Amino acid sequence: MTAPLPPGATIGILGGGQLGRMLSVAAARLGYRSHIFEPGAAPAADVAADTTRAPYEDGEALEAFARSVDVVTFEFENVPAEALDRIEALRPLRPNRKALAVSQDRLHEKDFLCGLGLATAPYRNVESEDDLQRAVDALGCPSILKTRRLGYDGKGQVRLAAASDVPEAYAAMQGAPALLEGFVDFSMEISVIAARGVSGEVACFDPGQNLHEGGILRRTTVPAPIPARLRTDAVLLAGRILNALDYVGVLGVELFVTPAGLVVNEIAPRVHNSGHWTQNGCAVDQFEQHIRAVAGWPLGDGSRYADVVMENLIGDDMDRVPELAATPSTALHLYGKAETRPGRKMGHANHVSPKTD
Amino acid sequence: MTAPLPPGATIGILGGGQLGRMLSVAAARLGYRSHIFEPGAAPAADVAADTTRAPYEDGEALEAFARSVDVVTFEFENVPAEALDRIEALRPLRPNRKALAVSQDRLHEKDFLCGLGLATAPYRNVESEDDLQRAVDALGCPSILKTRRLGYDGKGQVRLAAASDVPEAYAAMQGAPALLEGFVDFSMEISVIAARGVSGEVACFDPGQNLHEGGILRRTTVPAPIPARLRTDAVLLAGRILNALDYVGVLGVELFVTPAGLVVNEIAPRVHNSGHWTQNGCAVDQFEQHIRAVAGWPLGDGSRYADVVMENLIGDDMDRVPELAATPSTALHLYGKAETRPGRKMGHANHVSPKTD
Repeated sequence: MTAPLPPGATIGILGGGQLGRMLSVAAARLGYRSHIFEPGAAPAADVAADTTRAPYEDGEALEAFARSVDVVTFEFENVPAEALDRIEALRPLRPNRKALAVSQDRLHEKDFLCGLGLATAPYRNVESEDDLQRAVDALGCPSILKTRRLGYDGKGQVRLAAASDVPEAYAAMQGAPALLEGFVDFSMEISVIAARGVSGEVACFDPGQNLHEGGILRRTTVPAPIPARLRTDAVLLAGRILNALDYVGVLGVELFVTPAGLVVNEIAPRVHNSGHWTQNGCAVDQFEQHIRAVAGWPLGDGSRYADVVMENLIGDDMDRVPELAATPSTALHLYGKAETRPGRKMGHANHVSPKTD
Repeated sequence: MTAPLPPGATIGILGGGQLGRMLSVAAARLGYRSHIFEPGAAPAADVAADTTRAPYEDGEALEAFARSVDVVTFEFENVPAEALDRIEALRPLRPNRKALAVSQDRLHEKDFLCGLGLATAPYRNVESEDDLQRAVDALGCPSILKTRRLGYDGKGQVRLAAASDVPEAYAAMQGAPALLEGFVDFSMEISVIAARGVSGEVACFDPGQNLHEGGILRRTTVPAPIPARLRTDAVLLAGRILNALDYVGVLGVELFVTPAGLVVNEIAPRVHNSGHWTQNGCAVDQFEQHIRAVAGWPLGDGSRYADVVMENLIGDDMDRVPELAATPSTALHLYGKAETRPGRKMGHANHVSPKTD
């Protein structure tokens, strides 16, 4: 087994948003320094030992960054391949390129998941309006047309209510490679936050139930109200994905609960918004779990000791901070973003109650 | 009531050790930036937005520091009075000078506590060898001679086993003002971590039992095995101290449990090592509680949800990190200090178990 990074080593983090910020704090708690690489505004810079502000196209900055750190991880899966090439030539990248390549492209992701024998929404590749027409004929409506790359928080998606929506929906993709996903009749969305260490051990946090509004995660509730059988399925399925990718770090898996069992919605090769509840529900949270894996430590104990409702604070929800600050059993986590904008994730609140299950 | 500091405001912290480091992380979690002022090595710098490295005698550096922040607090009570004068002329200092003045001098501290009607060890001011001789005659042996100022972790203390130790003990003080403390027959030491907000509300964490070795805190156990009556006494007594000082922030109160009730050992006008258990036992820990108070927020909910044994990792205890990292229900907190030295606090481990009491 690889020896863990020594105390005082530096972890490079691609991306300086709130996930990078919370990763940086977790790294510090384990005695490591963090170096953030971020082209734009970086809330993570306030809690990192070093920050490089440069575009991903700046090869020199990337290489200087890589040389200054001991291992590189990311909070953001859409880092350009060329940037990753430069980094990987100099330092280990955890999780690895395969995990990134799969999750950067919805088509590859679905092919990969189906190849593992897992259920996904029915899907068709769409490279032309004719493709889309045939896909709608095959999968029916309602269905969702999604760009293959660079979508998040509901962006890059168009819903088709009827076959007559095809021309407008196709035009909205502006020529970007896309895929059509058929309708999945699900009772709820859950997610499981799973981790795999350098020596191959796997650990999962309890699944949570997710509620979205306008394509953005609004709330995650643990425990998810699902039978024990499905909890087991979720864990086994996450383990299968992690092992197939030879993954090191934390992975988020979004799942639909359907009458026929669990259907994988998507995977995120990083700490995940739906895992923020772990900060106030577990001795080791998802951020520390990720840093443990990336630094070559044994995975931590992710047992849940409380019930938690995690609520995202989006845009004007910040007006509720004084009220939330005065609410017992509510832990606030604010991201220090300079400007409040509609739809912008500004923080989250974990509402904690005694463990029932 | 004063309005809370706005999001993105900066909290100045005098002292960049592990307490400053954990305060800085807590400030970030509430959306604030931190600026550390530290003459020496600063583990806190790795998680702070800004750091000034300068001696407390550098008036210009102090003033630039003060101008760059919105409020100033400290992790270290022995900041020179001249430095505090310069800062206070520019920005609010929380907690205030009175709390610092009292706790910087053991004689003033004991006079203050006795003035509130609280019990302390019997004590005598010692300004000469004759004073010491008279003090030993009055208080008997064993007793402890302590410097009035600048003692911590058992430094600046000499134990007198017999009256014949007087000349050697007095010489060891090297002329520093001192006081002799008489023997207190106590069954255990406990401490209570208390907080007071800007609007005067008070909150206390559950008392913990402290175990020292070689003058350094080794372990704190919550709940402390004391009757409910004494828990109440501890809280009332802490509240009396906070109110008398018009205190804003977290205060540590060390208490001896004696057959006659609680005797105050000492107070620390800052977050306290014996409060580190709160990081894994409460939704709001002592660091966030301090930042909430300093930033003008309502105090948080410090209810305890677990039993915790906090164990300091001192010097070579760092060799145990791999074992501790693999222990379930143990949360590690490492300080990122570059060099391990005997007697140096390198981190701590919180061993968490279900709440029994």
